[in-house]
Amino acid sequence: MNPLDNISIVLVEPQHPGNVGMVCRAMKNMGLTRLRIVKGCRIDHPDAVKFAVSAGDLLGTAQRYESLADALADREISIATTRRHGKYRQEILTAGEAAERLLPQLGSHRAALVFGREDSGLTTGELSLCSWNATIPTSEEYGSLNLSQAVLLFCYEIFTRSGSFTLEEEPRKQATGGELESYFGQMEEVLLKIGFLNPQNPDHIMRSLRRILFRAEMDSREVTILRGMMTQIDWATGTFEGKKKV
Amino acid sequence: MNPLDNISIVLVEPQHPGNVGMVCRAMKNMGLTRLRIVKGCRIDHPDAVKFAVSAGDLLGTAQRYESLADALADREISIATTRRHGKYRQEILTAGEAAERLLPQLGSHRAALVFGREDSGLTTGELSLCSWNATIPTSEEYGSLNLSQAVLLFCYEIFTRSGSFTLEEEPRKQATGGELESYFGQMEEVLLKIGFLNPQNPDHIMRSLRRILFRAEMDSREVTILRGMMTQIDWATGTFEGKKKV
Repeated sequence: MNPLDNISIVLVEPQHPGNVGMVCRAMKNMGLTRLRIVKGCRIDHPDAVKFAVSAGDLLGTAQRYESLADALADREISIATTRRHGKYRQEILTAGEAAERLLPQLGSHRAALVFGREDSGLTTGELSLCSWNATIPTSEEYGSLNLSQAVLLFCYEIFTRSGSFTLEEEPRKQATGGELESYFGQMEEVLLKIGFLNPQNPDHIMRSLRRILFRAEMDSREVTILRGMMTQIDWATGTFEGKKKV
Repeated sequence: MNPLDNISIVLVEPQHPGNVGMVCRAMKNMGLTRLRIVKGCRIDHPDAVKFAVSAGDLLGTAQRYESLADALADREISIATTRRHGKYRQEILTAGEAAERLLPQLGSHRAALVFGREDSGLTTGELSLCSWNATIPTSEEYGSLNLSQAVLLFCYEIFTRSGSFTLEEEPRKQATGGELESYFGQMEEVLLKIGFLNPQNPDHIMRSLRRILFRAEMDSREVTILRGMMTQIDWATGTFEGKKKV
């Protein structure tokens, strides 16, 4: 089973159905699917459906609770999210730290990530129901995030650490020194012929061209394209007599 | 000065004013303030103001452009955000990697983070205008993020790293988007003329040449060398009649 299924997102008294819809979308983007709602607005409202886009299924499976205590009753770990920095702030984790601490425990623990009301967050009583407190680093100038943005950032921290994402990259195979040198030789010859390089001192400009192309970390196909280009230049300048442009 | 002020967020043809408002809020939450908009919807719409909440000032200072090339003309670094994983996927950075690579360069470079349309993202042509491509890790099941959520995650990756990087001491000053585009234009013209590019589909090879030269992170002097080389090729092939080599 997927360890992320052991995490529920809990919204306490959300006020705007559109926000709940966007929360669903953000959760599903990051591989989370379990939503719990403590009182708050209707979620069969058209705005909820509209903003959930392709995550409407999460609205359908969301569970309703009458109190936060009820919503946390079967959870071993509960994380209250807050932007308040009161007396207990030394105990407040960042979203990243919370994710890091949470993930290894998901094999044997069920967790809840708890978000408060859009305007006033969680009450002191609600905060005290939770095992950890966590917050999102923001600019000091404007620290108030939209509810779905806050949910997204926590889910993102969890998802990107969860190992369930890989870019599936096939490592680029760079061209060999031999391929590059062969190209540089061709390039120097053609550029001398068309009068771009100074025959007294071709190395000065060639060194710059080499630096550019080394930094480009080309693969074989790309070197082949450049070779073809140079061959065509060579051919197209076949009748050129080598005088320097004045 | 704040290095984050050297980053502009660029929205290409945003369709919903509410999304632009939420983008402003997300930016300001993460300490970014420079917004550029390429065509797209009105931003004096009530929805934009409503969803910006306390970040309405960013709507007021947003700059308008007629094309992405215009919006990037004074930028040394441009990062296209995409969820496509095409042939060039080995070169796609994650949001975190992009932030890590970008931050040390902000002392001497101006950057743009480019986001496409809500429904269709950026076109291939727009992607090819940018120095790097980057993507947000998401669930395979549902990878489509809301525009403001995507902006938020990139800004968050930048903001949370911004306290802990050091600016490069003597950074190389890269060429701007304007300088590069001007060179690419010249190169395409000459390569068409000498029959290296297929006039039916010049973009295929041009895209590869662009990728090579973006990766090379050239400075102005190097672009000048390449321009001179291309000018000389152009001149030396003055009498060429455009037939393709067999």
